[in-house]
Amino acid sequence: MQNNPAGLQLDLSGCLRHFLSIAGLSRDLLTEMMDTAESFGSVAEQAVKKVPLLRGKTVVNLFFENSTRTRTTFELAAKRLSADVLNVNIATSSTSKGESLLDTIRNLEAMHVDMFVVRHSSSGAAHFIASHVAPHISVINAGDGSHAHPTQAMLDMFTIRQYKGAIEGLIVVIVGDIRHSRVARSQIRALTTLGAKEVRVIAPRTLLPKDIQSLGAHVFETIDHALSGADVVIGLRLQKERMSGAFLPSEHEYFARFGLTEQRLKLASKDVIVMHPGPINREVEMESRVVDGSRAVILQQVSNGIAIRMATMAMTMSTVNQMRSQQQK
Amino acid sequence: MQNNPAGLQLDLSGCLRHFLSIAGLSRDLLTEMMDTAESFGSVAEQAVKKVPLLRGKTVVNLFFENSTRTRTTFELAAKRLSADVLNVNIATSSTSKGESLLDTIRNLEAMHVDMFVVRHSSSGAAHFIASHVAPHISVINAGDGSHAHPTQAMLDMFTIRQYKGAIEGLIVVIVGDIRHSRVARSQIRALTTLGAKEVRVIAPRTLLPKDIQSLGAHVFETIDHALSGADVVIGLRLQKERMSGAFLPSEHEYFARFGLTEQRLKLASKDVIVMHPGPINREVEMESRVVDGSRAVILQQVSNGIAIRMATMAMTMSTVNQMRSQQQK
Amino acid sequence: MQNNPAGLQLDLSGCLRHFLSIAGLSRDLLTEMMDTAESFGSVAEQAVKKVPLLRGKTVVNLFFENSTRTRTTFELAAKRLSADVLNVNIATSSTSKGESLLDTIRNLEAMHVDMFVVRHSSSGAAHFIASHVAPHISVINAGDGSHAHPTQAMLDMFTIRQYKGAIEGLIVVIVGDIRHSRVARSQIRALTTLGAKEVRVIAPRTLLPKDIQSLGAHVFETIDHALSGADVVIGLRLQKERMSGAFLPSEHEYFARFGLTEQRLKLASKDVIVMHPGPINREVEMESRVVDGSRAVILQQVSNGIAIRMATMAMTMSTVNQMRSQQQK
Repeated sequence: MQNNPAGLQLDLSGCLRHFLSIAGLSRDLLTEMMDTAESFGSVAEQAVKKVPLLRGKTVVNLFFENSTRTRTTFELAAKRLSADVLNVNIATSSTSKGESLLDTIRNLEAMHVDMFVVRHSSSGAAHFIASHVAPHISVINAGDGSHAHPTQAMLDMFTIRQYKGAIEGLIVVIVGDIRHSRVARSQIRALTTLGAKEVRVIAPRTLLPKDIQSLGAHVFETIDHALSGADVVIGLRLQKERMSGAFLPSEHEYFARFGLTEQRLKLASKDVIVMHPGPINREVEMESRVVDGSRAVILQQVSNGIAIRMATMAMTMSTVNQMRSQQQK
Repeated sequence: MQNNPAGLQLDLSGCLRHFLSIAGLSRDLLTEMMDTAESFGSVAEQAVKKVPLLRGKTVVNLFFENSTRTRTTFELAAKRLSADVLNVNIATSSTSKGESLLDTIRNLEAMHVDMFVVRHSSSGAAHFIASHVAPHISVINAGDGSHAHPTQAMLDMFTIRQYKGAIEGLIVVIVGDIRHSRVARSQIRALTTLGAKEVRVIAPRTLLPKDIQSLGAHVFETIDHALSGADVVIGLRLQKERMSGAFLPSEHEYFARFGLTEQRLKLASKDVIVMHPGPINREVEMESRVVDGSRAVILQQVSNGIAIRMATMAMTMSTVNQMRSQQQK
Repeated sequence: MQNNPAGLQLDLSGCLRHFLSIAGLSRDLLTEMMDTAESFGSVAEQAVKKVPLLRGKTVVNLFFENSTRTRTTFELAAKRLSADVLNVNIATSSTSKGESLLDTIRNLEAMHVDMFVVRHSSSGAAHFIASHVAPHISVINAGDGSHAHPTQAMLDMFTIRQYKGAIEGLIVVIVGDIRHSRVARSQIRALTTLGAKEVRVIAPRTLLPKDIQSLGAHVFETIDHALSGADVVIGLRLQKERMSGAFLPSEHEYFARFGLTEQRLKLASKDVIVMHPGPINREVEMESRVVDGSRAVILQQVSNGIAIRMATMAMTMSTVNQMRSQQQK
């Protein structure tokens, strides 16, 4: 994994060339991404939900980890940009014949594909691929291990901006398994870059990472303290498989100590919004009344996911096209 | 499940808004569907097998039950209407992460999809989804439990009409596992709505449903009686897994008592046609001579399946578009 | 399997109607295929990698054997020709419900598809299908048992021609498991048809077929002799599953006796090129220095795979279209 992901992500004029993590990206660039997503938001409302920006381009969903939900949003985003989409599930492909990751990449490159959307269980996989691909290819990180999930973070920022006007000055609370969450890591970076007043995290001790302070988040001891005056509350998905180990007490106990309830949300700002990356374990991370209530913007997050993914695809492709046309001069 | 599916299926002016079951649909509407399918039949003969009716629309094949054959026909129908198609196999998706059906639907809705083609092992699943989706979405039932398979029934009606001119006045025989067959249930409803003179059913006693008389079909005791003077004979697929239980004697015995043979078909009308929804168990439901003989219209049923599915997609989308444009006024 | 595949592959004026094997095809026709591929090579370099030749056509990838890599190249080729693509994995389809291969074909035909790309573990499967399909359908063999893999052979010929100007007069060495390799069989036929000076094969005795001499290849005893003066060296993939049986010594011993090394390649012509159909077992079939070295044209083979597949699709579709328009006169 490269130490300077910004260098890898940007071209010489500072345009987005890959989208791997929030780290190293400027407030201006993240704002441009949200502005671009906003312009794509209306495409979904049109009778013909298509723009020809990526016509004749081939987008490869390179999923080393199964995720129908995320794959679906990227596939829709690519198709609405008029790209051809190739779904490559690597579990069933030639890496199982012993081919290395790099050989797989080289082969797809040789087929003149234009973009890799990469999902991998190992942190750094998307960076690794980005640092090895041919100059005409963009890489978008669709989640790598517990490292980063930058499109999820940016759709969250975009959603917050829609409801709050700006990220600046907000108090944002993240509740849940921070330790194993690439989503939380990317959210904290995006929130601090975009000027949030305070990012609060609360989790069972076993689910807090050691480096949490260095990310710029404040650890709270009780959910009531954390929620006090909050503008945005983000619940994280609890991996059921962690429940059986030493990490966590029972689901019931987790809900009692960390579950988001209507009652508890009274401590937050009057206009608080509630977010969740999905899928939700109802009555574990939050009660159904909250999920289906007026504060929840969870489905708007899903809609915005398409727009943000269209934006990242359009921005990176545009950068690559410019690099290429400059090369040809 | 709603008690009045017609109300759910039609908009206020009586146009098809979802296609969930034959029940409650008028003879005029079923005829309109066949007329529409007829107009699409020629698309398959063109050099460019495309019409732009659903361009920029997203059709989701939401299959909770595996069926390559049915999924394929809907996928082809959607693509020939120029739609984007998303295949979502729910066994591998987030419901396996504990997400509820309704949460899955809400998520896909939020991605601004336009149509759900639903296959589910539970009766009423498509109705349930249709009664909960957003107003801009159409639902098409691609088979729910033992309840209904309306596109299959309508492609059968369309095929009968092609060969016989009309359904009115015909004697139609359905042979086989009526009890577990959503196809048979939908066929009987469609046949009676469209004015068939008589619908005869014949099956081992264990494979007859209790409510069969109320559907308007007449139970026959021997296949020879049933076939006498028949204009159309429809063989149903025998689920092999039912053979091992108490439901059925051996395959051999089944064929002896219920198998369609050239010999037996001599009892039917001289111009009898033989149908089957496929896939066929040769020498069980019917002998190969019949399957490959001149009376069989089984492959024409498959061709018509594309046209009928195009028709239902075009009709429901058109209704939704009209509802939307009226709303905007 | 038909004894005269050329008859099956060509129409009355000698145009390619199916592409099943190299056997029986003339030097002129193979040259035409390479010329067509060359014209498609530039499509991959365009900003919009699309030509409308197969717009509105439906190409079915009918894979009875899993192969993400080959399926992917055909899917990309079809999409770049603007066709609709249907991936049918037969393991999960209705043949598992007991439907015969021919019934599956008849059903897809009835859906008015235009082309079958067939991969099957049985030799002759593509021929069988081609000899039974409707006149408006083309069949392309994407590998059948140990019989033939003609698009792989032709992409190899196309690659050799790019680097060497022509096949004529060249000394070509094929190293590895000739016996189980459909690739080798098709390569030898193509090389001899196109006028290679000498085709040399070298393999462990257990991995040589009995009919190898009749194909026109010369068996060599040591790799050093085989490489002497060679213009092209093709390494074949070693199936790991063969290593455990009686066929082969250890991987280590195989590499020692047959592995391609920089050292050994010094015996070949100064301008030798090294090829491999992929995926490669590094340090078994060849050392990494060779794979990643300047003599290897392995990734160019992959690029050319798209162009050759586009060429075969375009040629066969064009023949079928002409047959149809003549019929209509």
